[in-house]
Amino acid sequence: MRPLDPSPSAYDHVLRLRVVRAFESRPLDAPDLDAILEAARWTGSSKNRQDWAFVVIEGQEDLDAVSAAGDFTAPVRAAAAAIALVRLPGGNDFDIGRLGQNIMLAAAARRVGSCPITLHHEEAAAEVLGLPADHRCRWIIALGYPDTVAEVDSRRSARSRGMGGRKPPEELISRGRLGG
Amino acid sequence: MRPLDPSPSAYDHVLRLRVVRAFESRPLDAPDLDAILEAARWTGSSKNRQDWAFVVIEGQEDLDAVSAAGDFTAPVRAAAAAIALVRLPGGNDFDIGRLGQNIMLAAAARRVGSCPITLHHEEAAAEVLGLPADHRCRWIIALGYPDTVAEVDSRRSARSRGMGGRKPPEELISRGRLGG
Repeated sequence: MRPLDPSPSAYDHVLRLRVVRAFESRPLDAPDLDAILEAARWTGSSKNRQDWAFVVIEGQEDLDAVSAAGDFTAPVRAAAAAIALVRLPGGNDFDIGRLGQNIMLAAAARRVGSCPITLHHEEAAAEVLGLPADHRCRWIIALGYPDTVAEVDSRRSARSRGMGGRKPPEELISRGRLGG
Repeated sequence: MRPLDPSPSAYDHVLRLRVVRAFESRPLDAPDLDAILEAARWTGSSKNRQDWAFVVIEGQEDLDAVSAAGDFTAPVRAAAAAIALVRLPGGNDFDIGRLGQNIMLAAAARRVGSCPITLHHEEAAAEVLGLPADHRCRWIIALGYPDTVAEVDSRRSARSRGMGGRKPPEELISRGRLGG
């Protein structure tokens, strides 16, 4: 393992990641999907337990089927592919979140847009994905090449609903103790 | 917002992130800490709710105090600083995991090493951090400039305990359904 290098461009990549909800209709190129899955595989986890599995969903019928397990899943129905993040026994949602973020950042580095989606109806998700009773899937990442025209509209709409920005630093950051 | 650029170096940065558990004793430079907190602030979350707060811990006494809230917290005691990830009411651990991963990747881009640590004793963590009853902190990120000599030993030790690698793709990845 080489030592860490300072990388303004890698920092910028993290800072600028934004969700993409509108995708071109063409499928993902196999090298892009493979690269995204490889970044997922190398995500760190508590004690390196890797208590997870990735289910790749492609094809409109399968994307529609898994979409029915969530309440706000339009980006999955519009996606070229999706990766369902399955939590195995012993896993935790913090590690699943680390996994999701790595998938999104790796995708963006390949010019693939992504959006994490909640599957609110976990029993329905488990049935569609064929999960045993002790496995869970509450999050899925929609993937596709960004439809840049539709994205402009989507982002304008998000901003108009106050969804675009972030809380100011003084509201988020304390020193020593909360509020300190 | 500019369109996504393909970035092999950003992809490589995600793929190569590894935890650092041994740190130099010097404090973090303020521009590095500020840049890490800015990347934290811009992390995406469900519905952009940002149900989180960041508590920066510096100084040996405070690092030791928060360390007592976990069972395996040596990297926090050895850290130059730590960021406690506080979950506000309405938040979820998936978003906290996305936050943690962004902090680690932004840190690495500034040549700052990091290690996520579980605070198993949440009541103790809440007391040290001054949290209201409806806030939780189960994870904290230890930060510091890597002690590259000690890290070589730490990684050798981790590998000898089978902690270094990852599960093979065929064990992790399915198509359509789990095991498919």
